[in-house]
Parts: sequence; structure tokens; C-alpha cells
Amino acid sequence: MDNRLIVALDIFEEKKALEIAKNISDMVFAIKINWPLILGSGIDIVTKLSRFTRVICDLKIADIPNTNSLITKKVREKGAYAVIAHAFVGEDSLKAVVDSAGGAKVLAVVAMSHPGASDFMEKNVDDLVAVALKSGADGFIAPGNNPSMIRRVRERSMNKPIVSPGIGAQGGNAVEAVMNGTDYVIVGRSVYESAHPEDVVGDLNWQISEGLERRPGKYEILNL
Amino acid sequence: MDNRLIVALDIFEEKKALEIAKNISDMVFAIKINWPLILGSGIDIVTKLSRFTRVICDLKIADIPNTNSLITKKVREKGAYAVIAHAFVGEDSLKAVVDSAGGAKVLAVVAMSHPGASDFMEKNVDDLVAVALKSGADGFIAPGNNPSMIRRVRERSMNKPIVSPGIGAQGGNAVEAVMNGTDYVIVGRSVYESAHPEDVVGDLNWQISEGLERRPGKYEILNL
Repeated sequence: MDNRLIVALDIFEEKKALEIAKNISDMVFAIKINWPLILGSGIDIVTKLSRFTRVICDLKIADIPNTNSLITKKVREKGAYAVIAHAFVGEDSLKAVVDSAGGAKVLAVVAMSHPGASDFMEKNVDDLVAVALKSGADGFIAPGNNPSMIRRVRERSMNKPIVSPGIGAQGGNAVEAVMNGTDYVIVGRSVYESAHPEDVVGDLNWQISEGLERRPGKYEILNL
Repeated sequence: MDNRLIVALDIFEEKKALEIAKNISDMVFAIKINWPLILGSGIDIVTKLSRFTRVICDLKIADIPNTNSLITKKVREKGAYAVIAHAFVGEDSLKAVVDSAGGAKVLAVVAMSHPGASDFMEKNVDDLVAVALKSGADGFIAPGNNPSMIRRVRERSMNKPIVSPGIGAQGGNAVEAVMNGTDYVIVGRSVYESAHPEDVVGDLNWQISEGLERRPGKYEILNL
């Protein structure tokens, strides 16, 4: 079984990011980075981190097709394994990401882990999943702290994998998320704010195995 | 009357951006930049461009509150005059931008200029405007190539200004947008792809004046 843990380095400092990545690279599927780290370090951080493991650029891309395309090409060129983009901006915008991603995977955000996700996204989740599928996205981002939402996306996902943030600091539980259909678990603060990131990562991997064992047979385990 | 033209430098190259900014700074309200230029030049481009004119960071921020806050603080620290964030991620996420913006203005995206905007955003535009107002945003982004959408936002905007992209390459007309309620016009490709950006800027300023003159009295002219 491949590793299914993704560690989110939602921090500004390049040195700390590289140090954590180096220490945990053998125990994770990928590192996820977002704008704060890129703003702090420059886009070459993608290439630097890629020496240790896969890098997922969580840019929540949400612009018109032309701009989405420019952003995607740039991170792909730096070696990103996957990029994360919003489905909410529409099929053409998301398709521009898919068409510009080259060999990189595209994960479409269809639901989120914070309270404000209920203002618009949750009401539209079925259609967001449909738009993501039509655009050719490779998988979905759905909230790990919302098991019923994971199941809802899962039922409509046409066997494309679900990647879930919101575990740990945001209240989600890795065992429960995986049992309900999450294929990859993203954890941020619990790891990078720990004095012993390797221990936290080890424990999370155990939780993921536990969740997979207790998962209903109807939810095939899917690869990104 | 203050100048009401915003030039979008949606390009990668720092040198070209600085050169255009220097040449047109006296004829525009602000320069708008987005991720492609920041990825190409690093975030310090905000500070460099601020020497010539106001800088609006069009980051289409669309993440959870914690990440939105980190991004906003970083660009504010570099001297941004305003930041652009999405309303569809919800009130808490947008409020995190407002609360982290310091003296910078926050413009909320409530409608967009590309075809895919009709997939989700247009159906929710009234509620997106309401959420933007509740979050304390200083103004709205609405599409300059969609006059009925500008009027719709205008009627619900509680006298906060409307800033409109989609003019020029995306089909919108500056005179018409301003007549229908746009307070600031954003133009990108028509300016930066021109061999004579100053001439294009001069012509656009004339169009904005024309639009303001022909604007119905019920639409007060609003400042950002």
C-alpha cells in the first residue's frame, strides 16, 4: 500500500519547510504548499521541495481561463506533482487548469473545511462535482472534518480520488475521514507546529491504515 | 475628478511591468497585478510598482480564513493599496481578508467576466453581494462586459464602488460599463500588448469621462 498522508506546510519560512520536508519525506505521499510559503520563498521552493518528495501546489486557483492557465504553467514548469483549483469559477476556468497542467494532476475544490463553506459551496456541491468531472480534473478536495460531505462527494465522484484537509487543528479525524471515503489525508498544523513532526506523521499513518481497514467494501481505494 | 482607470499588468516579466508602470503612472488610478507577475518577479514587485502608483493585488484569494489572513498580511506589508478576494468561499474567509488588510482596501469578487461565471456565480450574485457587505469589503468586482450584471450589483451595493475588468480583449466597452454603474475600469491586454500603451490609456480615460457624463443621476460616482 502506498503512503496516503499529505503534509501541508502552510508556513512562510523556506528553511523550516525544507527541514521538515527532508525529515518526513519517506513517511508521506506528498508535501502540500500554498501561497504563504511561495510568497515567503519564491516559486523555486516547488523545485527545492521536489527533491525530497512530490509537491502539491494548493493555490486555490480561481480566475478567468487565461490567468488560470498562466499560473498552472508556471508551477508545472517548477515541477509540481499536482495543483489545486476551484470548481466554483466554472467549467472553462477549471478546464484551462487541466489543459495547462501537462503531466501534473489537477485536484478540484468542491467543498471546504471552514464554516463559511456552508454559505455557497455546500449548497452547490453536487453541481461542483459535476463541473469538476466535465473539466477533466483528476480528483477532488473535500473536507476531512465533514464525513457526510465526504460520502456525498464519494457517491458522485466516478471513482476519482478524494483528498481531504481539515484533519487535526480543524477538528477532523483521519480514521473517520478515510472510513467515509477520503483516499488521501492532508494534515498541516498538527505536524509543522509539533516539536516532533516525525512522531505525529507516524501516528497519522497508523490512523489512515486503521481507517482503510474499517472502510466499507463499496468504497474502492483510489490512487492519485 | 480623480482618474478612474486601472491597468492590469497580467504578465510575467518584471522589467516590462516596471517600464509600463513608469510610463503610464500619471494617467491611471492604479496598476493591478496578479499571480503570474508575482510568480515571475517575487512579491517585492508590489513595493517596486508602488513607487509609481497605487498597486491592487488581484489574488482572487479563496481559501480558509487562516490562509486568507496570511496571504493578505503579506501583500499589505509590501505596500498594496488594495487586494481582491472571492466572496464565494464565505463570510468568514472574506472577513479574514478584511480584518488582516490594515489600511488596504478589500474588493470582493461577486461576478466575473468569463463564460464559466454563469455556472455558479451569476446564480448566486445577490447573496454574494450580501456576504461581501456583511464581511466589510470596501467594494465589488463585477464584469465590465455584462452591463445588466453591473446594474444588478449596483442596485444592491449600498453605495460601495464597483470595479470592472473585462473591458477590451474580453469584449466589454468602457463607456457602457461606466454608464451602467462601474466606478473604476480595469483594462489589461489592450494596454500591455499595445506598442503605444500611453495612447491606449489616453483613449480609455476619454471613454470613462464619456461614460460618466452619460450616466444616470441615480448612480452616484463612488470613490475607492
